[in-house]
Amino acid sequence: MTATKSERVTAAVMIIGDEILSGRTQDTNLSAIAKYLATYGVDLCEARVVPDVEQEIIDAVNALRTKYDYVITTGGIGPTHDDITADSIAKAFGVTAPEHPEIIAMLTARWGDQLNAARRRMAHVPEGGSLVKNPVQGPPGFQKDNVFVLAGVPSIMRGMLEDVGPRLRTGAVVLAKTVRVTGTGEGVIAAPLEAVAKAHPEMSLGSYPFFAPPDVYGANLVLRGRDAAELDIAVSELISALAEAGAKNVELLADPA
Amino acid sequence: MTATKSERVTAAVMIIGDEILSGRTQDTNLSAIAKYLATYGVDLCEARVVPDVEQEIIDAVNALRTKYDYVITTGGIGPTHDDITADSIAKAFGVTAPEHPEIIAMLTARWGDQLNAARRRMAHVPEGGSLVKNPVQGPPGFQKDNVFVLAGVPSIMRGMLEDVGPRLRTGAVVLAKTVRVTGTGEGVIAAPLEAVAKAHPEMSLGSYPFFAPPDVYGANLVLRGRDAAELDIAVSELISALAEAGAKNVELLADPA
Repeated sequence: MTATKSERVTAAVMIIGDEILSGRTQDTNLSAIAKYLATYGVDLCEARVVPDVEQEIIDAVNALRTKYDYVITTGGIGPTHDDITADSIAKAFGVTAPEHPEIIAMLTARWGDQLNAARRRMAHVPEGGSLVKNPVQGPPGFQKDNVFVLAGVPSIMRGMLEDVGPRLRTGAVVLAKTVRVTGTGEGVIAAPLEAVAKAHPEMSLGSYPFFAPPDVYGANLVLRGRDAAELDIAVSELISALAEAGAKNVELLADPA
Repeated sequence: MTATKSERVTAAVMIIGDEILSGRTQDTNLSAIAKYLATYGVDLCEARVVPDVEQEIIDAVNALRTKYDYVITTGGIGPTHDDITADSIAKAFGVTAPEHPEIIAMLTARWGDQLNAARRRMAHVPEGGSLVKNPVQGPPGFQKDNVFVLAGVPSIMRGMLEDVGPRLRTGAVVLAKTVRVTGTGEGVIAAPLEAVAKAHPEMSLGSYPFFAPPDVYGANLVLRGRDAAELDIAVSELISALAEAGAKNVELLADPA
């Protein structure tokens, strides 16, 4: 099902894990999910990183699932004592998380009589949940209502994500173009950028400065919108306005493949 | 001022910027701040990524500044129309954000008669705020009560961070050791890990699995605590318990420099 053009489809990401908050692990799942959702026209509106603490997970998922169309969580679905995502999500929904027979069957096929209590924990799925395929390694994730619960290991998370997209109500895809200005600061860029932004209230225009010491600086100006013709017009207007404001070295970047 | 051992000092990070939520930019500020805070014994407990939308910034900073000892924000303090952090933080505190005379003086020295309206926006500081030094490039950040507002460009953010640490109430530094298990899955690791975790309730033990197709797998077991002697005991207990459970290739990693 595709949403009508004006109907925005929204999502939030919830990254569960002490290892991200300690700085030990650099998260890469957020940007991977953001890019994936964009191809379905779903806007990622917020992300939260929460620790491996039950009440924190419950509070965050309840806040996010009522505010946005979808929530995607990563992390905490393994067999160790700190893997509490499935049970916490179940509590957030006020249900239990019994062993899912399909996962028990998979685990039994894999582990036979080595299927111990720890491994059985990976079969916990909140009542009413459906499985999310794991094409990479290990047991599946799950969907409970509008919440998708995926693994934290990036290669496995990305594999599971392929089973999420087809279940989403999709929106009109956001198109983006980037105008790069080099050697001119945002102080000069600001006025022409704001003028174009005001002329196109349905679009989003952002300025992302870069600075490489000692003397390379400038900004990437990203124009986003759902209407391809309007996007092209806004790009032209911005390039003209930047030239009038005295910016040199203005280039429209090639679209990413 | 150093907190007593049992008194935890907490912080949250708030990353402001559409470019992180679109997946266009890979955030690296979160892990940099986490590692920096750890050296001061401050626990990073939560992080949020919010868009360049005033009400979202206000709601998030108000939720975080009342829940944690400190909040550190990144992004949105430049001169363009999407740089709304200073004004939004002021609104969250119910104050205005007038031009700060010291910043105006800096900007005047730098820009002279090119100090336009856009550049003057960078002088907005909420009433009662103090400046956070920027040793890298451009105007300073600021502190308003327990909220520190820093730049989004990583090199500038890290420079500003150096002026944040000395202002923090510090806690006992958390020490960490990592035991790596290769070629044994978490299903075997879980029971010994949980036993050691239960024996040391003041510590935090986490399992972070890795998987490199086709056949490299295992987990990094991270033990954290504020008592060096207890940490060493727990590491020894864990290594023994893993051996008893049949794990091979168990190694204590060297501490990072």
